[in-house]
Amino acid sequence: MRYQVLVRLKEGVLDVQGKAVETGLRDQKFDAIKNVRVGRVIELDVDGVSKDAARKQVEDVCKILLANPVIEQYEIKEVL
Amino acid sequence: MRYQVLVRLKEGVLDVQGKAVETGLRDQKFDAIKNVRVGRVIELDVDGVSKDAARKQVEDVCKILLANPVIEQYEIKEVL
Repeated sequence: MRYQVLVRLKEGVLDVQGKAVETGLRDQKFDAIKNVRVGRVIELDVDGVSKDAARKQVEDVCKILLANPVIEQYEIKEVL
Repeated sequence: MRYQVLVRLKEGVLDVQGKAVETGLRDQKFDAIKNVRVGRVIELDVDGVSKDAARKQVEDVCKILLANPVIEQYEIKEVL
């Protein structure tokens, strides 16, 4: 099974990378673009275990390695 | 309109961040997890322009600022 994990900063946490992109865009006259948020996307395969166990493993790795639960939230999707 | 842009390394480009995650996972006995690829997700609003113009602007900013077309590919989705 292949999973996609989106890791984003929680609402209210200052997104400095997003602000930098906004500044860069404004400098290039893309004034219509606002509220830029930058996060990470992680795609991974989980093989040789049941679907429930695979999902559990992905949840676990999000907590211990992929996301910082203090400032980030994650979303797990199964992909084809 | 809000758009989500996924920026990933092209197939065949060595993903050192993904390899680092794999090593970290192996050290923690998550042996079932393989083929980790790490990319970026950028979410942004485009306001005050038509839908076609908004999409065009997002395409343009992908090319000039968000992705490196030599080694990265991008995917644009409209989100709610």
